[in-house]
Formats: sequence, C-alpha cells, structure tokens
Amino acid sequence: MERRKFLKGAAIAGTGAALAAPAIAQGGKTLTIVSTWGRDFPGLGTSAQRLAERITELSQGELRTEYFAAGERVGAFDSFDEVASGNSQAYVAADYYWGGKHPAFNYFTSVPFGMTTPEWNAWIKFAGGQELWDEVAGEYGLKSLPCGATGAQAGGWFNKEILSPEDLNGLKMRIPGLAGAVMSKLGVSTVSLPGGQIYENLVSGAIEATEWVGPYNDYFMKFYEAAKYYYTAGMHEPGGGLAFGMNKSWWESLSDYEKAVITAACNEEHAAQPEEASALNGQYLKRLVDEHGVQVRQFNEEVWDAMGEAAAEVFEETRDHSPLAAKVNDAFQSSLLEIGGWRAIAEIEYSNQRNRILGIG
Amino acid sequence: MERRKFLKGAAIAGTGAALAAPAIAQGGKTLTIVSTWGRDFPGLGTSAQRLAERITELSQGELRTEYFAAGERVGAFDSFDEVASGNSQAYVAADYYWGGKHPAFNYFTSVPFGMTTPEWNAWIKFAGGQELWDEVAGEYGLKSLPCGATGAQAGGWFNKEILSPEDLNGLKMRIPGLAGAVMSKLGVSTVSLPGGQIYENLVSGAIEATEWVGPYNDYFMKFYEAAKYYYTAGMHEPGGGLAFGMNKSWWESLSDYEKAVITAACNEEHAAQPEEASALNGQYLKRLVDEHGVQVRQFNEEVWDAMGEAAAEVFEETRDHSPLAAKVNDAFQSSLLEIGGWRAIAEIEYSNQRNRILGIG
Repeated sequence: MERRKFLKGAAIAGTGAALAAPAIAQGGKTLTIVSTWGRDFPGLGTSAQRLAERITELSQGELRTEYFAAGERVGAFDSFDEVASGNSQAYVAADYYWGGKHPAFNYFTSVPFGMTTPEWNAWIKFAGGQELWDEVAGEYGLKSLPCGATGAQAGGWFNKEILSPEDLNGLKMRIPGLAGAVMSKLGVSTVSLPGGQIYENLVSGAIEATEWVGPYNDYFMKFYEAAKYYYTAGMHEPGGGLAFGMNKSWWESLSDYEKAVITAACNEEHAAQPEEASALNGQYLKRLVDEHGVQVRQFNEEVWDAMGEAAAEVFEETRDHSPLAAKVNDAFQSSLLEIGGWRAIAEIEYSNQRNRILGIG
Repeated sequence: MERRKFLKGAAIAGTGAALAAPAIAQGGKTLTIVSTWGRDFPGLGTSAQRLAERITELSQGELRTEYFAAGERVGAFDSFDEVASGNSQAYVAADYYWGGKHPAFNYFTSVPFGMTTPEWNAWIKFAGGQELWDEVAGEYGLKSLPCGATGAQAGGWFNKEILSPEDLNGLKMRIPGLAGAVMSKLGVSTVSLPGGQIYENLVSGAIEATEWVGPYNDYFMKFYEAAKYYYTAGMHEPGGGLAFGMNKSWWESLSDYEKAVITAACNEEHAAQPEEASALNGQYLKRLVDEHGVQVRQFNEEVWDAMGEAAAEVFEETRDHSPLAAKVNDAFQSSLLEIGGWRAIAEIEYSNQRNRILGIG
C-alpha cells in the first residue's frame, strides 16, 4: 500500500514512475473489472478476485487487471452500463440481472427447472450455447464468457415452513430472474436485490424469504437470524452460471493470445468456484445447524408440481417476448432434454443407487 | 509435413536451422508427452491432443509440447516407466492403470461406488485430494494433475442380459481398477486391457463384456458388433479422472509461471472433456440404438446390492495393503460422505424432481 502510494505520488510529480514498474508490466493492457459481488465475500467475491489475479499471472503482466468490488467504482447493478459504455472493460456478474433489458439473458445464468451446472456447461461450450449468448450480449455491445457457477442452489431461507403451494401466497421474497416470475404466479411478492442488500431487508421484515446460493456462501450472510427454515433443493437456479462480461469492441481488439489467456482463466475459475463450494457446503450446512439452529427442509412433491406448472407458463410468456427470446428458450430446452436425458440414466441413476446403498442424503 | 521434413534435413546438414524457428520458440523448454490413448481417438485422444497444444499456446511457445499417442513412442501401459525414468516429461493416462504398483492410485481415477466427477473435483482441488495424490505419485518420482474426466461411465457392454448377480458368474470382462476386483468377487473373470486392444478381444470371444466410457467415446469402438446390451449406469467408474503425470524432478525445475500455465491448461481440459462428452452422449446413444440396434438397459437393485456388498469387501482388502492405502481410502470415503451428502439433498434431489416433472430419463 505504501509503495503504491509512493509510486502514484511519483507519477503525479512527473518523475518517471513508469521506469519503476516491473518490466513485464510495460507495453501491456489494463483491464478494469467491476463486479456485482462484495469485496472479499467468501465464494462469489473471492472467486472473482482470484480470476482477476489469474489473468495477470497467466499473461505475465501483459494484461494487468484492476478489480473493483460492488460499490467501489459503480453500484452492483450499474456494471452493465459501465462495461457496455466502455468505461470499464469487464464485469463479473450473473447475466440474469439484465433480464429486464432482454429476457434471454436469464438462460445464461440459470432458469427454473433448467440445466444443472454440468449440463449448462456442456450446452454453453459444446452445444451452441456460447453462440446464442454472443448473439444476445452482442446486441448490447457485450461479449460474455462463463467464469463461475454456483452449482444447484439451495431452495432458500423462509421464516415459516412451506407445506403446500398456498403457504407461498402473499410471501415477500428476494428471488431474481425467471424464478421470480414463477414465484409471482404462486402469489409471492418478489424482488431482485444485490447480495449486499438482502440481509437488511430480511431483518427489517421488508422481505420474509430469500434465496442466495448454498451453505458455504449463505453462512456468511446470516439470513438465519430472521429465517430459520432452509430448503436445500430448489427449482429456481439449478446452475447459476456467472459471466465475465466484456466490452465487445475491446474484446475484438485483443490478440489471439490475449483472448486465449482470458478464456483459459475464465474456464479455470468457472470450474473452481463450484468445486470449492461443493467441497465446503457439507461442513457449512453442519455449522448452520449446529451453531445457529437452522432447520433443514425439502419441498414436498405438491409444492414442486405447483412450481413446475407455473414455470411452464413463464416459459411460454418468455417465448412471446421476441423471436430471439423464443430461439434461446427453445435451444435451451432442447439441449436440456438431450444432455439431461443421458445424465438421468447415467450419473443421476448411479448417484441414486449409490446414495441408497451407502445411506447418503 | 513437407516443411518439417525440410527443416529436419537442414538441421542434419548443419545449416543453422535454429534461425528458421519462430522467435517465440527460442530459449523455451520442450515437453515430451506420451499417452495411453490412440491417435485422434474421439473423446479421450482428441482431449489429450488439445491439452498438448494449449500448453504451447498459453505459454506463447515457451513450453513446446511433443505429443505421442499410445504406441507411437512407447506402449500405452509403458507410459509410467517412460515418465518416471525422465525419458519423457509427462503422460496422459488414467492413474488406476498403475494400481498394481500401489492400490492407492485407484482413488485418483475412480473407484466403485465412489465420487462422481463433480464430487471428485471438489475433493482433489479443495478438500485434500491433490495432497494425497502428490504423496502417492511422489513415491514413484511423479507429480500428477487432473487433466480430463469421463463423467459417470456407462455400466458396460454385455453379450447377454444381466438380470441377477448370478448372470455375472463366469463372465469374461475387461474392467480395470478396483471395479475389476469387485466383479471378480461376483465370479467374473476380469482383465485390464488398453483401449486399443478391447475390440479384437471382444470380437474373438476372449472377453464377453467390457466397460469403456460412455456413448460418445464408445460409439467409435464398435463393441456393439459383439455385445448388444448396453447398461447406462454402473458402479465401477463414477468419475474417471485422468492424470497429466509429470516427472517430479522436471516439474520442480519449472518456474512459477510455467507451473501456472500447465496447471491452467490441465484445469481447462479437465473441465472441457466431460463437458464435450456430456454434450454428445445423448445423440450418440440415439445413434447406437438407431443405427446398430443396441439394447439399452439398467441393472436392477438386486445386482446393484450385490455389487455394493462386494465393493465393501474390496475396500477392506485395499486398506489392508498399507498405511498409505488406508489413509487414502479413508480420506476419500470421508470426503464422499461430506461432499456427496450435500449434493444428495441439493443437485440430485433437484434433478430427480425436475426429471420426474419433465419426464426426462
């Protein structure tokens, strides 16, 4: 910190601070990254920061990254305009935050009853998903790459048990994306809030329920102070893919090598984030129960079925928005059937048999 | 090809061919990679070749890779000695091929009733698995990184239906690793063969059944010519993690930057390989059925239970081998319960509800 301050002062004084910079930093490009996640926030935040450092490391300083957490340069939900305008080069975000600009963005984070993280990855990278993402983001001057994922998210935090679809009626809940639209159909009053604003709204009673990510990420949010019932499986975000959203013109100005480095770093972190959460979720769930008396629950089939019916309506309405929305929806649902179909009779069937025999779950 | 031939000739003639090499290739290191997979083999082979190219690309030629498929430099199962001796710098293989040297190697590919790919990744990268792998491989002068995975493998190809555990008795099957030991307990006569030798043994009748990977990889193996029954879920390789096994002294001689590039390329490919297979397995299963009349089956619970009991015995025997084998087994099983426990009540529960509602599987 002292040294940076000194260098900054030296530059202002015009004493040739550039000479003091390490050789590898000369001639390269600076990549300013804004984020929708809080500084040092375990999981989402630390993952985004690790990505920024990795781009610099893998490029040997040719691509220098400056990372700004939510609120440090712009507010979380201002990241889109910040990058689309070219004021910064990239954001780390969940692209469904931009669903109000175009509903097709939802499919590039996660949609209700949609693909899980392994399925979504297959779609994005090897079944045409990236090309559709490019088309949607390209309309706004953006180019997104996957750079993180949550895995199947916990169903959420509630201040009462949900024993039937009627228990959802009238509930005030933070739940973004198309899942919010699904819950609205069941009578939930939904709101989309950045992570940093959920706790205060839950504690004040402005909302009575929220979803976030999973035990590791959620532990630090302290939602259990106001909502004791934790539903572990949910229909709302089975994948939770995150975006490294770049200014498209800037991306296109890069060399093949620079593109390869950014892509590699994003691919690495895209894998690492859910792996880290997966390694920690079990122990953090135990801590939530043991330390804070959290009550672990599953929705029953009646609740799942009601959500399923509502989701079918939401997808029809989403298709009606525009030909592009319909195209993305139909490609997504088609890949879900094909990719999910094999997984159902292989990895899922295996997991069910193993869990039955070993008594897991 | 012509140009390489010319340069080679020029070098022999001592006319200073080094000057003709691109600037980025000067001063770097050459990394000779041998492999257990056939040249251009869709899936496993193409993935390993993509990795070799990526290391060169990401290092801007500072790490030049030479890739030799199985049999091009050494035989598939000679890769271990080739790299341990320092004759080549790295292999791409499934480390359970070295289970005869130490049974702990099995856990770094896949073990019966063990972790699925997402679970195994979490264990290796964020729950102590890599450190144990380093300990086991280090005893043989090797350092392995994960560089590919198959996802949950298909249960295998059989020339008759398996309707009870008794149907396995007396069967001759290619199935390596601890899963081979499990099947032996059920009366199967097991053998471990490299991929390139399975087809001829199956067609000749030397074996009557085999497992390999999944529809995409298996399609090109033509096993359906001799075994029509394809079981989609199996207990034997739920993860199938692959190894980029390097000579340990060579790895330790690398700079932090060189290590970062190799690690990044391995992490990328470790994610990409199962994503690619996952994107293609559904359509290749359809082709197997439509084009070749393959009969798709699932083992019933009686068969699963018999395999589960046999596996429990195999793990006890594996623990008895040595303190290191017991340590690796116990760490693996403990992480399986913790990591798999959360997944059971989140992603697996979600997948089951979604598949039920959408009629998938």
